[in-house]
Amino acid sequence: MTDGTRDLDHLIDLLAKLPGLGPRSARRAVLHLIKKRSLHLLPLAEALTKVGQTARECLNCGNIGTSDICDICQSDKRATGEICVVEDVADLWAMERAGVFKGRYHVLGGTLSALDAVGPDELRIPKLIDRVASEAVTEVILALSATVDGQTTAHYIADQLGGVTVTSLAQGVPVGGELDYLDDGTISAALKARKSF
Amino acid sequence: MTDGTRDLDHLIDLLAKLPGLGPRSARRAVLHLIKKRSLHLLPLAEALTKVGQTARECLNCGNIGTSDICDICQSDKRATGEICVVEDVADLWAMERAGVFKGRYHVLGGTLSALDAVGPDELRIPKLIDRVASEAVTEVILALSATVDGQTTAHYIADQLGGVTVTSLAQGVPVGGELDYLDDGTISAALKARKSF
Repeated sequence: MTDGTRDLDHLIDLLAKLPGLGPRSARRAVLHLIKKRSLHLLPLAEALTKVGQTARECLNCGNIGTSDICDICQSDKRATGEICVVEDVADLWAMERAGVFKGRYHVLGGTLSALDAVGPDELRIPKLIDRVASEAVTEVILALSATVDGQTTAHYIADQLGGVTVTSLAQGVPVGGELDYLDDGTISAALKARKSF
Repeated sequence: MTDGTRDLDHLIDLLAKLPGLGPRSARRAVLHLIKKRSLHLLPLAEALTKVGQTARECLNCGNIGTSDICDICQSDKRATGEICVVEDVADLWAMERAGVFKGRYHVLGGTLSALDAVGPDELRIPKLIDRVASEAVTEVILALSATVDGQTTAHYIADQLGGVTVTSLAQGVPVGGELDYLDDGTISAALKARKSF
């Protein structure tokens, strides 16, 4: 085995470690990239290097951007007094794609978890309490997963925040959802939260 | 939107175009890479750049390596007189993983296809005929897909090659295969090619 095949194998190994890819799809991806060298491989290498050099976490909210304070925290338009608390940057992106929330975010970086020994200080919870005290926050919207850990985290945060309205996302039937395919918990939550038609 | 988020979106778009990844898994991959910047993102960017600069097709067989003639074609150990004809570099890699073939390869770069207007000159078929005439080839093993296009290509190549033994891979029940889950064609091929036990 020469340096050349070692380079290829190394690239395949690295790609195979990405979430959603395995060795087989990594091999396919590498062959595809080599075939489309100037259109795909070189731009991808460049984009990775650029993001690797510039991406950083916002010191205020934990969002990923290229400056110490992210675009959303810098924008005056987003100073609505609402903070949407999410677990992860992926959740923030999902909220932004929906395009209905006009306030700012706070990315926790996970949920409290007794099993994984994640306490409040491992998350960005102290910073959230600071922000609520120092920024003109009128409402904290908890957009956390409807899992045990997510809801534990939501209750903990609600307990810590005094003097500010704390809300959470509604639970119910998803848009386009068929009752037949929904789990019992969702149906009972939707029934409990039923509203006049 | 600033340059920073444009860089991120650009990276996500490029990753989403890889076979096996979509926008959703590309976003997950990018967040994962940013979290593991020095362990994963920077090495990946480096490996891509390196492969982008050095990878090239072997002028003899079409395999991917880093020199004009690939390692397998350069190795005297592989000069067994057997040439295994495959469609794609991925197939060559699959044969090498199996580790039973000790000869050299010839990568066609696809199959003949009337629909896609792929003729013999679009593939590496003339070069194969040259090799059989100039190298001391004793056997050409056709390891092509068991599809209509693959078998058409196999018949065409067998017709073109005179004075050399041409064989093809056996068809039958795959190792670990259960009869119940096999298609009719495979069962009938396996029955026709039955052998004394």
